Amino acid sequence: MTDLTERASKLDAEDPLAYLRAEFDLDPAVVYLDGNSLGAPPRRVADRVGEVVREQWGRRLIRSWPESWWTAPERVGEKIAPLVGAAPGQLVVADSTSVNLFKALVGAVRLAPGRREIVVDAATFPTDGYIAESVAELTGTVLRPVAMDELDYVLGDQTAVVLLNHVDYRTGRLYDMAAATERVHEAGARVVWDLCHSAGVLPIELDALGVDLAVGCTYKFLNGGPGAPAFIYVPHDLQESFRQPLSGWGGHRDPFAMAPAYEPAPGIARARAGTPDILSLLALEAALEVWDGVDLDDVRAKGLALTGFFMECVDELLGDAVEVVTPRDGNRGHQVSLRHPGAGALVAEMTAREVIGDFRTPDVLRFGFAPLYTTYGDACRAARTLSDILADAAAGH
Amino acid sequence: MTDLTERASKLDAEDPLAYLRAEFDLDPAVVYLDGNSLGAPPRRVADRVGEVVREQWGRRLIRSWPESWWTAPERVGEKIAPLVGAAPGQLVVADSTSVNLFKALVGAVRLAPGRREIVVDAATFPTDGYIAESVAELTGTVLRPVAMDELDYVLGDQTAVVLLNHVDYRTGRLYDMAAATERVHEAGARVVWDLCHSAGVLPIELDALGVDLAVGCTYKFLNGGPGAPAFIYVPHDLQESFRQPLSGWGGHRDPFAMAPAYEPAPGIARARAGTPDILSLLALEAALEVWDGVDLDDVRAKGLALTGFFMECVDELLGDAVEVVTPRDGNRGHQVSLRHPGAGALVAEMTAREVIGDFRTPDVLRFGFAPLYTTYGDACRAARTLSDILADAAAGH
Repeated sequence: MTDLTERASKLDAEDPLAYLRAEFDLDPAVVYLDGNSLGAPPRRVADRVGEVVREQWGRRLIRSWPESWWTAPERVGEKIAPLVGAAPGQLVVADSTSVNLFKALVGAVRLAPGRREIVVDAATFPTDGYIAESVAELTGTVLRPVAMDELDYVLGDQTAVVLLNHVDYRTGRLYDMAAATERVHEAGARVVWDLCHSAGVLPIELDALGVDLAVGCTYKFLNGGPGAPAFIYVPHDLQESFRQPLSGWGGHRDPFAMAPAYEPAPGIARARAGTPDILSLLALEAALEVWDGVDLDDVRAKGLALTGFFMECVDELLGDAVEVVTPRDGNRGHQVSLRHPGAGALVAEMTAREVIGDFRTPDVLRFGFAPLYTTYGDACRAARTLSDILADAAAGH
Repeated sequence: MTDLTERASKLDAEDPLAYLRAEFDLDPAVVYLDGNSLGAPPRRVADRVGEVVREQWGRRLIRSWPESWWTAPERVGEKIAPLVGAAPGQLVVADSTSVNLFKALVGAVRLAPGRREIVVDAATFPTDGYIAESVAELTGTVLRPVAMDELDYVLGDQTAVVLLNHVDYRTGRLYDMAAATERVHEAGARVVWDLCHSAGVLPIELDALGVDLAVGCTYKFLNGGPGAPAFIYVPHDLQESFRQPLSGWGGHRDPFAMAPAYEPAPGIARARAGTPDILSLLALEAALEVWDGVDLDDVRAKGLALTGFFMECVDELLGDAVEVVTPRDGNRGHQVSLRHPGAGALVAEMTAREVIGDFRTPDVLRFGFAPLYTTYGDACRAARTLSDILADAAAGH
């Protein structure tokens, strides 16, 4: 145990990203390992939001719309673009992930006329499956949930679109975006990637891989705040043919002309729907400034090291008491999931001891490691706390 | 002119709602008559949002979701409910107006199987028409735009749903919700009311009139902030049969069970879609506290008096130089629209002189009167400023 503590100290001392933790407003008493559910607040957000309310809203009033607000969805999109390998003009931030999934899936089905199936990873985050089910009903297609390792067997000339998660929210397994995209394209279908658990985790190459559409949330590793608006990616070569169903005035070619007929904007703005939610959008904009000058290769290296070190601590301190569900090779995001029949109660007791992870039904303890602010010391303390709780329970405390 | 100024002072001195202006953070140098586009910030919002970021997000972190965030859409809905005549459990706040229109219209079409037409006011705010067009395409119905005074002639056994604006955004005309709802129901169709320009303006009786569905924004007379989330109303008797297409996990019966199949929540929660946008939602919650103890009859009386007084000022100071488009009888919201061929330039020059209204293409100057903070003095100064500008122009300044 002492050895692990010493190693954690050494790893933290040598960490090239350690300076970033000071950018976050974190309670020093707490070990926060749930940044894959809700990222921690970057310090600058609180003041920025206050300033937006007092100055932009209070003093400039309606004038702020043309001055800076109306184009915020595109402007904030440009700050996320480099994190997902997208050249400018292809991302917009607005609405929730579920709403953007709906836009993307209907848009994708319309890009594949005559094809009748929407394929979705059967272990997907539920909202993805629910939205896909609704899109199938509205577009007269059929929803086909499949296990990821059976993808090859179901793709064919009836496949319109395939909705995939880059990282499995439960196990933390990372899928090979290049290989899966290629297979979907070989079948002549469109792929929609859900990047909720991978944006801000590792370098993503949407443009280079020829991904058709992607969506992702901004409140996990991007630290945008609770329910912060999500992003949608539509590459240049698909924009002209992309027709999404939430055709609000925000996506119109000339919104303030108040024209009676809908005519989609020529670029990525056509992925917008209604009036954008400015307070949340500008909170997110402030939060994203933390990424300026950060190299995603460093982030990825630290994320793998943190999760790897945590698994080592678990092995040493917990042994067979829990099962490590997350892949031990490089095919994982920045989370480690442990299986234990008492997972719910264990997570609650860890929280009572100020180590915050989360519980995913029925038996998973899930810990997220955010390289911008998680330390090796955090990883070590989390494993030790879990070990202490199990020891206390065994001793009948 | 002096007489008008004196009358304005007297009216302000006698105004029973005058005390509310102090609740708003307004620049004393500015006359703000655009609260029908973006309401002014209630003072308490800036601090509340800072507190949400620092305390609820920063200190409680993920624990805030079960503690207070997850149910915020319903909780904030309950604060709006009395303003629109809805008993508890029928409103939810989340997503933009456009997105909620989409939910409502698809839901309404599904309530009227076998009927093939969506009827919409031809002069509707554009986003309503755009969304209705998209819903028609997805549901295999036909969109039929009609002038409001021809509504009687088009309703019939093919009408599935009628989407109506309570107040015309351009002219300020208020429609008779009771009469129109009754006519739609006589035809066996469903009515969806857009309350964007009437929520916070006058007592609305959604429950008493048997309205089927309604949506409205919160950033105009409800002062929720730029792009604040909108509300949707689904009455108790329709909730069980209401099936909306944005079936994200937020509307699921048991969201955290992460069940593979979508099962809508039993109550109004089924109108929710994805993860709610908390910063904006809680800013709105703070903004709505300004309404505590306010009687909507007083608000309506002052709104009619303010707009009436402004029209008097316009008549006296501007004569035939502008055309008053807004009805002079009681059938108006809290706005006055004036027509002038140089409307765009006039609004710009008024803004330069710190009197803020807005321009609606091609020739409308639009002024909103928010009884919680607009004064009779504001109305008088606005008319005088416009008169001065026209006089300066005539004198070749």
